[in-house]
Amino acid sequence: MATVPRLDDDSAGPEARAIFDDIRAKRNTDYVNNFWRHLASDPALLAAVWERLQQVMAPGALDPLVKEMIYVAVSVANGCDYCIASHTAAARARGMTGQMHGELLAVIAMASQTNALAKALAVEVDERFRL
Amino acid sequence: MATVPRLDDDSAGPEARAIFDDIRAKRNTDYVNNFWRHLASDPALLAAVWERLQQVMAPGALDPLVKEMIYVAVSVANGCDYCIASHTAAARARGMTGQMHGELLAVIAMASQTNALAKALAVEVDERFRL
Amino acid sequence: MATVPRLDDDSAGPEARAIFDDIRAKRNTDYVNNFWRHLASDPALLAAVWERLQQVMAPGALDPLVKEMIYVAVSVANGCDYCIASHTAAARARGMTGQMHGELLAVIAMASQTNALAKALAVEVDERFRL
Amino acid sequence: MATVPRLDDDSAGPEARAIFDDIRAKRNTDYVNNFWRHLASDPALLAAVWERLQQVMAPGALDPLVKEMIYVAVSVANGCDYCIASHTAAARARGMTGQMHGELLAVIAMASQTNALAKALAVEVDERFRL
Amino acid sequence: MATVPRLDDDSAGPEARAIFDDIRAKRNTDYVNNFWRHLASDPALLAAVWERLQQVMAPGALDPLVKEMIYVAVSVANGCDYCIASHTAAARARGMTGQMHGELLAVIAMASQTNALAKALAVEVDERFRL
Amino acid sequence: MATVPRLDDDSAGPEARAIFDDIRAKRNTDYVNNFWRHLASDPALLAAVWERLQQVMAPGALDPLVKEMIYVAVSVANGCDYCIASHTAAARARGMTGQMHGELLAVIAMASQTNALAKALAVEVDERFRL
Repeated sequence: MATVPRLDDDSAGPEARAIFDDIRAKRNTDYVNNFWRHLASDPALLAAVWERLQQVMAPGALDPLVKEMIYVAVSVANGCDYCIASHTAAARARGMTGQMHGELLAVIAMASQTNALAKALAVEVDERFRL
Repeated sequence: MATVPRLDDDSAGPEARAIFDDIRAKRNTDYVNNFWRHLASDPALLAAVWERLQQVMAPGALDPLVKEMIYVAVSVANGCDYCIASHTAAARARGMTGQMHGELLAVIAMASQTNALAKALAVEVDERFRL
Repeated sequence: MATVPRLDDDSAGPEARAIFDDIRAKRNTDYVNNFWRHLASDPALLAAVWERLQQVMAPGALDPLVKEMIYVAVSVANGCDYCIASHTAAARARGMTGQMHGELLAVIAMASQTNALAKALAVEVDERFRL
Repeated sequence: MATVPRLDDDSAGPEARAIFDDIRAKRNTDYVNNFWRHLASDPALLAAVWERLQQVMAPGALDPLVKEMIYVAVSVANGCDYCIASHTAAARARGMTGQMHGELLAVIAMASQTNALAKALAVEVDERFRL
Repeated sequence: MATVPRLDDDSAGPEARAIFDDIRAKRNTDYVNNFWRHLASDPALLAAVWERLQQVMAPGALDPLVKEMIYVAVSVANGCDYCIASHTAAARARGMTGQMHGELLAVIAMASQTNALAKALAVEVDERFRL
Repeated sequence: MATVPRLDDDSAGPEARAIFDDIRAKRNTDYVNNFWRHLASDPALLAAVWERLQQVMAPGALDPLVKEMIYVAVSVANGCDYCIASHTAAARARGMTGQMHGELLAVIAMASQTNALAKALAVEVDERFRL
């Protein structure tokens, strides 16, 4: 049902295959998930997204699990089924427990409803929230 | 510009005023921000949202700062200007540094772009992401 | 701040001015609101939107107030500040009371949160909901 | 494909099972739909959502069918496939005819297009729409 | 899984069937795609959407391929899987190459991320962007 | 009202100032617009976004004006007021006429309404749109 073909290692060109290998090496797995295999139809886009993703998701002032949960939250709000599935799995792999998942969902649900209310009420931003 | 009046303590009815007082007590401040003052036009809705918010944002398996950052992420994706302003301020009040804010923004931006790509490519969810 | 000029009756061309007059006549008012005055930069688009709006919002199996409340609900979810303001005003003019407005907001908030939850959980549609 | 397991009555804990029973009793049916069975992974969240839903959707100043149609409208704009399916079915069960459904769709489509236009034009809210 | 039946030529009424025939004639094909067959449950809505679509997508100051790519971009941002699939196919049929598709995706991804950043930062519009 | 300060050349650090200078040089102007001045609070993010933007928006298989119009379309659907204003101005600077703008708006409006309808109808993707 995809809009571009999903490339396996044989059908991908050398530039895309090199990225597949880098994904395997960095993630310490043999598996390259579908997102990258479709994105491989445009090797330059594949390279740019993969490179940037590594920078953004690396440990920093926020730890990788927190980043994955933020990623899930954005993906839910944007309605990306694939991203919800893949980043929920990634968060679990990084240690998200059932209780943490439940709290993540509760915050997403809470924010979604007050987002709607604040927009519906057209609330003006308080002076004290301005810098 | 709001769609319902913003109620101060005098114009609010007793039920809403009691919630205002509870907000002040629980947050240890004299200030009740605009969201609640507009929501006060419907005291039952005000009470329900305020009560649920306290449950959801309380410390649990996730700490309150992480919850505030998730709240910001959802609010950005949903495009709620008020919520972005108020929850960014709340996250800062809970200790979000400039570096943490930068990383939060970078994750939101990253997720936004891969959300769009995965939707545009119509990527099928990998078997291994399914439970 | 608009991206195209707001045309008054003098600056609008004859085709747009005729639509302005039709809006005044059909709505029984002298006032033409900003949406139409900006849209007038493209008279063909103005005509198409105005004509279709009248058909859609006319009394039918649903009464006009219900239609206005549905319009508000969609506008909140889509984050259109202008549309929220104008259609909330229109709903009020058609008889939406404060209590009805409160219930409308409560349903919008409820739907927003279960929308987020159902997406986050990736719930499969029950057989019995299929036709 | 869900991100948490779907719990049947045997696998759900006593708190979740009690909610399942309450859903059956209040809805006068043996069937508990998938949304609740997935949400049951977090019994506290399940309880909170189910309780609030009953309050919000009860007859009030708006009748339950109108509420269901507003629910559908929000779900369409938020792109929740599950919610569109379940609340369209619920609206039909409450008496939504084919003609009412057609008008609901027409209003949603109309609002979606003027939402986009008002945002694209950056139309400023008319003074008379402000409270 | 649709919320209204998909009508074939036999089950559609004469008004809808006439639109089906017009679609076939204008598109020079025997095939009427699912969108129209579901929309046919409301022949008036079917007629209105089909008529308007032809006007909007006709060659003008923008060529039809550019219009199809803009259509895809909006559909991705709005998360309409059906529309992404159908308009990506339509763009390809009008000559969109793999390289053009890759650039379209890259612009959509870029816009998605700066949209999120500008909202998160609450950037004020520069005077020079105002008319 | 921004959530981070807007940095002028004096308050920005050397890394951000170098990007400001690069923006001026590449765009052949003295003006650095607000988006970059706020993003400068996180120089690494500023650098990453600016670098990628140049790659994506450069002439390629699609010409820069088409890219700007696609950018506007995404920004409208995502509801980013700043981006709508800045990229509409950019499209105009690259030659978008009033008629082209009108057609762009018409396509965005059309897509927005059929996006909503296809989601509301839960239309299944036709076999022939699959690769």
